[in-house]
Amino acid sequence: MNRLVDGKWRTDYQLTDEGGAFRRQQTTFRDWVAGSDVPAHVDAEPDDRFQPEAGRYHLYVSYACPWAHRTLLARSLLGLEDAIGVSVVDPWRGDDGWQFTPEKDGCTEDDLYDSSFLRELYVEADPDVSCRVTVPVLWDTTEETIVNNESREILRQFTTAFADLGNGADLAPTDRREEIDRIVTEIYEPINNGVYRAGFASEQEPYDEAIDELFGALDHWDEHLGENRYLAGDRLTEADICLFTTLVRFDQVYHTHFMCNVRHIHEYENLWPYLRDVYQTAGVADTVRMGHIKEHYYTTHPDVTPSGIVARGPDLDFTAPHGRDELPGRPPEPITAE
Amino acid sequence: MNRLVDGKWRTDYQLTDEGGAFRRQQTTFRDWVAGSDVPAHVDAEPDDRFQPEAGRYHLYVSYACPWAHRTLLARSLLGLEDAIGVSVVDPWRGDDGWQFTPEKDGCTEDDLYDSSFLRELYVEADPDVSCRVTVPVLWDTTEETIVNNESREILRQFTTAFADLGNGADLAPTDRREEIDRIVTEIYEPINNGVYRAGFASEQEPYDEAIDELFGALDHWDEHLGENRYLAGDRLTEADICLFTTLVRFDQVYHTHFMCNVRHIHEYENLWPYLRDVYQTAGVADTVRMGHIKEHYYTTHPDVTPSGIVARGPDLDFTAPHGRDELPGRPPEPITAE
Repeated sequence: MNRLVDGKWRTDYQLTDEGGAFRRQQTTFRDWVAGSDVPAHVDAEPDDRFQPEAGRYHLYVSYACPWAHRTLLARSLLGLEDAIGVSVVDPWRGDDGWQFTPEKDGCTEDDLYDSSFLRELYVEADPDVSCRVTVPVLWDTTEETIVNNESREILRQFTTAFADLGNGADLAPTDRREEIDRIVTEIYEPINNGVYRAGFASEQEPYDEAIDELFGALDHWDEHLGENRYLAGDRLTEADICLFTTLVRFDQVYHTHFMCNVRHIHEYENLWPYLRDVYQTAGVADTVRMGHIKEHYYTTHPDVTPSGIVARGPDLDFTAPHGRDELPGRPPEPITAE
Repeated sequence: MNRLVDGKWRTDYQLTDEGGAFRRQQTTFRDWVAGSDVPAHVDAEPDDRFQPEAGRYHLYVSYACPWAHRTLLARSLLGLEDAIGVSVVDPWRGDDGWQFTPEKDGCTEDDLYDSSFLRELYVEADPDVSCRVTVPVLWDTTEETIVNNESREILRQFTTAFADLGNGADLAPTDRREEIDRIVTEIYEPINNGVYRAGFASEQEPYDEAIDELFGALDHWDEHLGENRYLAGDRLTEADICLFTTLVRFDQVYHTHFMCNVRHIHEYENLWPYLRDVYQTAGVADTVRMGHIKEHYYTTHPDVTPSGIVARGPDLDFTAPHGRDELPGRPPEPITAE
């Protein structure tokens, strides 16, 4: 693996610890835009340097990455397309890390700096930075730096500080925020990060642990979703965004590539209709690029799939009727000015 | 990969051709025991040197290998356990090829020569042999050589030349032999070898071709088995043995490890009950060692799964009721002397 060390590019970074377990590194840029509601578990304050203004911030994403996908989804559901620009990297990530290949379908150039590699942005933000170079990146064109590169924190900034710049949909209702935070934390380790812990384990024991936790958690939420249209009850919230981006990749990628093969999502009684329900919500389907997702995983991890062959995968219809409108609840709706 | 060249062990053998397609090598020892019915497509004659005698021949197998499994199954269904001995190699195959590790569960020593490696048998049979060292091996203790190491040919010798030494079950009725030969040939390339062509492809195109042919063939036989209890109609025959050993490995191994992940066998309307029907036939279940199967594939192919981690796989119940006794037909029955 690769990363920046004191602003220099290195490619000899170890992915697992001595026990063969995958350990995700902390992200580095953790500032909050003014007006954000910072969750209780985060030790930070909104920073007045970063005012929420339409046209000022830019998002760097990969369609392949489930973390970046969270921010793309929030941008879309909140109607922030005009307020926040987006640049899309190549789904294939080689020794040089994420790169810009605008000639490739669905990819763009770096709209701000015309960089070749995403790492140039990181060095632009901090010439001596030591960190992995990841997406998403929320870039501030005024301060010319990275505000934040932690998906969950960008998500909360979008749903709170930026809400007024969009369509007014509320993906983090104040009275449910505590519950949302609890759920997002609960699903992270066993599910969102769990698929990576299974797939990147280099020893049997950490793989087995990850698999037990992953399918235990999926079973739990499958049951929960038998009674609830969405994770936090009758409203689609940040929590659903966080689960969705893992679920939508699961059957095509995590099941085979990361050997999370006890069950498919499409074999679950409630998770599968739930996944289709969220997929069919206005603004969601356009953010799902299965071609980028499959190309990324199967071609980017030679330690996992040396051939780089993209597996065919099951034929899934995300647009089939989901029947979940019989449960109490409704998709998020833009608040239209009277 | 490894093989013998002029009786010497080499480990630099290429598995795929220039186009990235897997090409299975021909087996080398192709003699036929006297009294065998040689199929029309095989250019050989029964050899009087090899008389069918109880206690004279010995079978070398791996429980992991679907080709070896064919011969083990026939031996069991024909009641040849007392007539033909068996030695079982370690499911893990390293640079030295198949080896004997009697201390491991389900494995045995080489009961005849106390060899460490199966390749020693091949050199014993022919000091200058050039070939891959594969299972099954049918060994003749009188001539001290390998009679045959091609599973389909050993199978036919068991069902014809050796039939009188066992329980009298008929797995290749004379009037269906032509149909059996046709079916066994038809399923070989797309299914039995197809999973290997998918799994060992090193380029996308041969993988895609293998996947298309594999699932096209599975769909075809699934439909056929909606009307027929067994492949050749109402009798379990050699053809079922040949399909079974691939099907029983499919969901646990080929689906994930070889990326044959369009559908599981347990998702097929007829193949799945058919698989359980054959599995529940007297003498079959004891030949299926899923532990050996999973260990072999996941730990033996570092080019496919570098971590050597054994994937968990779905929880399948091969003993669940299959309901196929409603179709015309019956399992093979020993012919009891009056």
